[in-house]
Amino acid sequence: MTMENDFAQLDFDRRERRGAPETIFCQGKSNSQLLEIVRRFHASGEDAFGTRASADQAEVLKAEFPEIQYDALSRTILLPGRTERPRSVFGPVAVCCAGTADTPVAEEAAKTAEFLGCHVGRFYDIGIAALHRVVSALPKLREAKAVICCAGMEGALPSVVAGLIGAPVIAVPTSVGYGASFQGLTALLSMLNSCAEGVAVVNIDNGFGAGYMAFQIVRPR
Amino acid sequence: MTMENDFAQLDFDRRERRGAPETIFCQGKSNSQLLEIVRRFHASGEDAFGTRASADQAEVLKAEFPEIQYDALSRTILLPGRTERPRSVFGPVAVCCAGTADTPVAEEAAKTAEFLGCHVGRFYDIGIAALHRVVSALPKLREAKAVICCAGMEGALPSVVAGLIGAPVIAVPTSVGYGASFQGLTALLSMLNSCAEGVAVVNIDNGFGAGYMAFQIVRPR
Amino acid sequence: MTMENDFAQLDFDRRERRGAPETIFCQGKSNSQLLEIVRRFHASGEDAFGTRASADQAEVLKAEFPEIQYDALSRTILLPGRTERPRSVFGPVAVCCAGTADTPVAEEAAKTAEFLGCHVGRFYDIGIAALHRVVSALPKLREAKAVICCAGMEGALPSVVAGLIGAPVIAVPTSVGYGASFQGLTALLSMLNSCAEGVAVVNIDNGFGAGYMAFQIVRPR
Amino acid sequence: MTMENDFAQLDFDRRERRGAPETIFCQGKSNSQLLEIVRRFHASGEDAFGTRASADQAEVLKAEFPEIQYDALSRTILLPGRTERPRSVFGPVAVCCAGTADTPVAEEAAKTAEFLGCHVGRFYDIGIAALHRVVSALPKLREAKAVICCAGMEGALPSVVAGLIGAPVIAVPTSVGYGASFQGLTALLSMLNSCAEGVAVVNIDNGFGAGYMAFQIVRPR
Amino acid sequence: MTMENDFAQLDFDRRERRGAPETIFCQGKSNSQLLEIVRRFHASGEDAFGTRASADQAEVLKAEFPEIQYDALSRTILLPGRTERPRSVFGPVAVCCAGTADTPVAEEAAKTAEFLGCHVGRFYDIGIAALHRVVSALPKLREAKAVICCAGMEGALPSVVAGLIGAPVIAVPTSVGYGASFQGLTALLSMLNSCAEGVAVVNIDNGFGAGYMAFQIVRPR
Amino acid sequence: MTMENDFAQLDFDRRERRGAPETIFCQGKSNSQLLEIVRRFHASGEDAFGTRASADQAEVLKAEFPEIQYDALSRTILLPGRTERPRSVFGPVAVCCAGTADTPVAEEAAKTAEFLGCHVGRFYDIGIAALHRVVSALPKLREAKAVICCAGMEGALPSVVAGLIGAPVIAVPTSVGYGASFQGLTALLSMLNSCAEGVAVVNIDNGFGAGYMAFQIVRPR
Amino acid sequence: MTMENDFAQLDFDRRERRGAPETIFCQGKSNSQLLEIVRRFHASGEDAFGTRASADQAEVLKAEFPEIQYDALSRTILLPGRTERPRSVFGPVAVCCAGTADTPVAEEAAKTAEFLGCHVGRFYDIGIAALHRVVSALPKLREAKAVICCAGMEGALPSVVAGLIGAPVIAVPTSVGYGASFQGLTALLSMLNSCAEGVAVVNIDNGFGAGYMAFQIVRPR
Amino acid sequence: MTMENDFAQLDFDRRERRGAPETIFCQGKSNSQLLEIVRRFHASGEDAFGTRASADQAEVLKAEFPEIQYDALSRTILLPGRTERPRSVFGPVAVCCAGTADTPVAEEAAKTAEFLGCHVGRFYDIGIAALHRVVSALPKLREAKAVICCAGMEGALPSVVAGLIGAPVIAVPTSVGYGASFQGLTALLSMLNSCAEGVAVVNIDNGFGAGYMAFQIVRPR
Repeated sequence: MTMENDFAQLDFDRRERRGAPETIFCQGKSNSQLLEIVRRFHASGEDAFGTRASADQAEVLKAEFPEIQYDALSRTILLPGRTERPRSVFGPVAVCCAGTADTPVAEEAAKTAEFLGCHVGRFYDIGIAALHRVVSALPKLREAKAVICCAGMEGALPSVVAGLIGAPVIAVPTSVGYGASFQGLTALLSMLNSCAEGVAVVNIDNGFGAGYMAFQIVRPR
Repeated sequence: MTMENDFAQLDFDRRERRGAPETIFCQGKSNSQLLEIVRRFHASGEDAFGTRASADQAEVLKAEFPEIQYDALSRTILLPGRTERPRSVFGPVAVCCAGTADTPVAEEAAKTAEFLGCHVGRFYDIGIAALHRVVSALPKLREAKAVICCAGMEGALPSVVAGLIGAPVIAVPTSVGYGASFQGLTALLSMLNSCAEGVAVVNIDNGFGAGYMAFQIVRPR
Repeated sequence: MTMENDFAQLDFDRRERRGAPETIFCQGKSNSQLLEIVRRFHASGEDAFGTRASADQAEVLKAEFPEIQYDALSRTILLPGRTERPRSVFGPVAVCCAGTADTPVAEEAAKTAEFLGCHVGRFYDIGIAALHRVVSALPKLREAKAVICCAGMEGALPSVVAGLIGAPVIAVPTSVGYGASFQGLTALLSMLNSCAEGVAVVNIDNGFGAGYMAFQIVRPR
Repeated sequence: MTMENDFAQLDFDRRERRGAPETIFCQGKSNSQLLEIVRRFHASGEDAFGTRASADQAEVLKAEFPEIQYDALSRTILLPGRTERPRSVFGPVAVCCAGTADTPVAEEAAKTAEFLGCHVGRFYDIGIAALHRVVSALPKLREAKAVICCAGMEGALPSVVAGLIGAPVIAVPTSVGYGASFQGLTALLSMLNSCAEGVAVVNIDNGFGAGYMAFQIVRPR
Repeated sequence: MTMENDFAQLDFDRRERRGAPETIFCQGKSNSQLLEIVRRFHASGEDAFGTRASADQAEVLKAEFPEIQYDALSRTILLPGRTERPRSVFGPVAVCCAGTADTPVAEEAAKTAEFLGCHVGRFYDIGIAALHRVVSALPKLREAKAVICCAGMEGALPSVVAGLIGAPVIAVPTSVGYGASFQGLTALLSMLNSCAEGVAVVNIDNGFGAGYMAFQIVRPR
Repeated sequence: MTMENDFAQLDFDRRERRGAPETIFCQGKSNSQLLEIVRRFHASGEDAFGTRASADQAEVLKAEFPEIQYDALSRTILLPGRTERPRSVFGPVAVCCAGTADTPVAEEAAKTAEFLGCHVGRFYDIGIAALHRVVSALPKLREAKAVICCAGMEGALPSVVAGLIGAPVIAVPTSVGYGASFQGLTALLSMLNSCAEGVAVVNIDNGFGAGYMAFQIVRPR
Repeated sequence: MTMENDFAQLDFDRRERRGAPETIFCQGKSNSQLLEIVRRFHASGEDAFGTRASADQAEVLKAEFPEIQYDALSRTILLPGRTERPRSVFGPVAVCCAGTADTPVAEEAAKTAEFLGCHVGRFYDIGIAALHRVVSALPKLREAKAVICCAGMEGALPSVVAGLIGAPVIAVPTSVGYGASFQGLTALLSMLNSCAEGVAVVNIDNGFGAGYMAFQIVRPR
Repeated sequence: MTMENDFAQLDFDRRERRGAPETIFCQGKSNSQLLEIVRRFHASGEDAFGTRASADQAEVLKAEFPEIQYDALSRTILLPGRTERPRSVFGPVAVCCAGTADTPVAEEAAKTAEFLGCHVGRFYDIGIAALHRVVSALPKLREAKAVICCAGMEGALPSVVAGLIGAPVIAVPTSVGYGASFQGLTALLSMLNSCAEGVAVVNIDNGFGAGYMAFQIVRPR
């Protein structure tokens, strides 16, 4: 038995197999690991799209790849590869969130869907404490082919939205709240128990997963 | 040290101290215990109002007190005492529930508030999956001085209602649901995290507590 | 404030608003409530499709509506209305499950998607303890436009499947298992943490919700 | 589908709809977001009342609005608008807490109720380990039209108080404690299970919610 | 390796080692296992004291040992052995409970302490919703050398009692309650977080353990 | 997409791939499903070994296969196939349990290991409340090449045993206990946190898994 | 209603009522609050004994009261008052702990018991992974009139000790461990489920409570 | 009762009793405690192998023992003693992990097994999102006599591996993930519920325990 010990085994045939390239989850990776991974993406010609990138990580990457794009709100990075990506050709996808504090997660979803070629509309701070904000967004929400709803606290936004439209709703619980919100657990459980049909849920704060799922739903096959 | 061992120590000065008489939580009491307690209420002249009474318990009590009233939906009993109770003089109190399966809890709340002298309006099966049902109830909900909202599953109804009215909302999570509803825990947590101000929560399925709290809010002092 | 107390407020414009009619969650409803609701559906001409129907409930309904169809495995009922439903026109949708004990949930999903007009393929007992079963199903899974994966215990099936295909995966945790499966909680958590992109999750044992979501994904809009 | 992306949609008709203006939850907002929101309140003429404001946030706001009032114990800010607020006209409301460490939450409740026009009495460090402290406060507690009880650890104070008075008790679990207090969860559960009628509960550390609820209870309508 | 497979290995030197004999936890044992164990106790001359005995188990044992004593409330059995047991010589021990539904657990504690030789006083249904009941029991509670407090729901009784006396308090959470009482978990957590010093806790419904602990505290050594 | 819908896909090359044949988890299977599965095993010539078989299921199987062996304590069935199984050739394996109520789980482990060819020694009712029982079993426990320890309640037995021997310990938490044992969760957590090295844990009540793991450890390769 | 707002209401008749003076829980108090409280103790002549005091708090107090004693391991402070305290007259009390990391909690217990007049013996790092360490301590443990056992991880020490001695055991779960120790929850649950009689439990890391309880047990009355 | 208070009681006969020496869990020990313990190991001639050592601790130890080896990834230290350790003589043991972020735990396992004399093969970043990585490792995994699988998030890797090989699998949940991974709890539960036989689980992030267990399995006895 010989030793095989490469810290990262990249999956460059994922685009072939799954319709979208592998992406990079930056959180928890050391600077040297992240840099090496981005280098491999770059060498392969594939786009390097990363989520949960800290400002420090972005600095380290920019030193070597000045053309890298870092978005501080969504904490995403993008180093374009040599292939032409589709732009705003699928969808539209609507990304909603309940409050100002949910915008980082919503933007992670939006940026992911946009990277994958979706046209994205944003509907932020439309939480149910002031229901007219949902209602006034409704005509546009009804145009979307998939709707992402991010909410913390009681997490009721996706249930309310799903009850009013025909498109599938991807619910993203956020860790926004305090006390018995339990870092998003309450919103998660609430969304799983939606009394409105047509809601499916991703992990707490998983904007990336929601954006990816929306892309899978709206791209033609 | 002598032994003191009476299984029940009734609190007949509670009306004086708290403004409402002691009531009977029937669940978990043996037939003989329950019968003895009702006898003591009856002997004292005080109204005997009981919650969580099973049909069997009601039968046992009726055999001795044929005039006892049993309501199977709310599982309440009432054996009127010798004092005149106020009727429909406080409030009004609105009792809402999200789905058909929540009606037993809602009725426990309504019957309790009525026993204590409140005027009660009922608004049932107005869950947020069909928001127009809430909206059409709104004009009457706005007349209420206290609103009780019972809901299981994601428990969003009290948040939606509270955002639309000015009266305090008493939220009652119900054990309606399955899977990750965890017998009402999800609705409980959701209600505690309401993004709308003016929601306070009682225990799961505690219609009695909600009705009592509403009475305390609406009676003049 | 007058009293409004109808135990069920049916939502017959749901088809208009959402693209699919209201359905009936039979569990927790009394025989008389269920019968009355089915009568109203029947009177309206709308299809009455119900889930979580017990054999006893089916008997009660059959006494009045002999043409009602009851499927014991999925526990669904169907009383066709006066409109023509689409049949096998959307999709295809693949419904997978990990073990024999997951088939009731899988069938609830399949029957729901079929009721809503989807073409459904079934891939049962393909759990990951014998990975070749997944592998041999793969060519057909790759034809599906949406894939539903039902699994209890460790709930790994949707992660494995999602990593191999391009279509969105709707994961349904089931309450199959014992001990630290906690009635499906472990499978639920596992699915929410899938390391493969493109998995969204519904409530434990919520085959209906998965079938509905699949319909929303695959129907053209 | 055009993009709509304002990070905050203020709800200035809330006073009309609900009887009290929107307030600002400062925690989790960036300095620039908070400043912009306060500017909009100021421009509208509405009072800007904020909770969970850090000393740093207060500094930032004071640089632009020197007249802003910051209370470090309750962490509230107040920038008076152009309308005359009612002062000490509703109530009285009693705010109790069990221990010294609960005072920040109690003060958030008290300051909120005062902002909304209530007359507030404070009864601090009256926890049940020395019951005579509750007893000696009792005559004044009985004058209150609503009582707020803040407690961490075993959270028994609201149960003891509710058993002795006729006014509704709003229980606020605090995150005070250690070990099996689980950051306030134990107090929360304890309060939800109060054996004394007339207790309703808000989220852990939610002094604001309790103060708002008390206002709703005591203001005349 | 030979097989050693006796289903029960009795510990007859426990009295020597620990000061009290082994006892029998009847729940979960088959009739034949229980009968065989009682026979061995009987043959050894040791008292056979058992807890959590069902009425059915008592019947089976009585058929062979007519002199066995069964107490249905506490679900204890006693088959006296050939040694003289001490009676009412240690203590006194006070056993309190909050409500009528707690009496089975309280009686298990009391019967256990009495079996072990303690003088026991009972103070039942003195829950804190009517604090004067605790207060009127206080003079006698102060005579006790150890106090057992059984309570379900919010479990506040031991905290209130401990704050008023000098003896150690053994708190027994009971599974009495519903909803967020979580079968005694809330009372357990509440008791562990008592703000009054001098409270130690045993398992939910563990009257036996509390009685045994009280015996260990009060017997002279 | 054609429909593939066989409720059970048996894995007869498992013996080849993994060194032991597939077995049958009887719980949750209908009589007809179980019967069909046993028939397929029988037809293939493979041994049919099943766990979690109820007495009713055993009856159904015996009607068709009179030679089937059912062990009521361990709830295992065995219908020998046409191949010769190894008997008592691997090991020895020691199976311990803490109390009488743990014997069903211990026997499931023992019967599984024996089915797979292990020599098994049993050491039952040696819980740590009487430590001399562990100590007296020690010489034989030290002969074992793998030790299985089943315990409920506080689950300390595997920790104590592991600290005294050199062989690996497989810990099996059992659902024996009440109150805060939470159906085996406490024992599970305790075993996972063993301060003695050399303990690995299987699911609550999973005697089968422990027996299988022991077989894998002791068989030569 | 006038305002009563003293942040701390000291309880100087506690010694009279309960047999021991009030003590100070320093954690969570501001420097100025703590200083003021110590001043009041000092002025009253009462000993000021505090737990959970940080090194910083000790510095602040020493600046005004140079004679104050601070023990960094147990984090206790002592400012002797004008009354003579009993020293080493009650007991003996044994304080055990399982590992080196448990010593801060064990010392808090020991220092508390000593402050209250107990003679204390310490038995540290005697965890069950090396059982001979418990066994060799046994002769002295058997002399104690009360035994405190502190342990984290699987928390088995009190169960093992209780099974070997006749004195009551006060179990203190510690937050020592990682992963599934859940900051002491596992040890807490394990201790509550002890299969050995005579174990009662205090909160996680509550050395103070254990020392106080031991004092109550051993002091003569 | 005299005081016995040594903070650490080393167990130098553990090698004799258990086949491997005691090791040092560095986390939570003060520099002086750790230094003193290493000195005692050194003085005894025993190897000092420590886990969870911080870089700071390593610095302190190196100042006195320059020959100490510190591995920053696995956070292990090794100060060789005077006995010859076996090297790469047992096994082979395969150590797998699912993702880059799991490598610290995997390396703790590998380094532990190597310290104890095992030959170790490493298979890192072979998570199931790209199943071909597992498949391509399979031939070598099948050579191993014990396999360790470390994974966070949904923790499915050990189930997939176990289903494909004949050796026992030791599953190590890691705290890698976010949201509903609950610091490794989800992976832990998933692994406990593996549908593939032959998986046993150690505590979250407990690479040491896995390496030790693998050593126990593969060393001849």
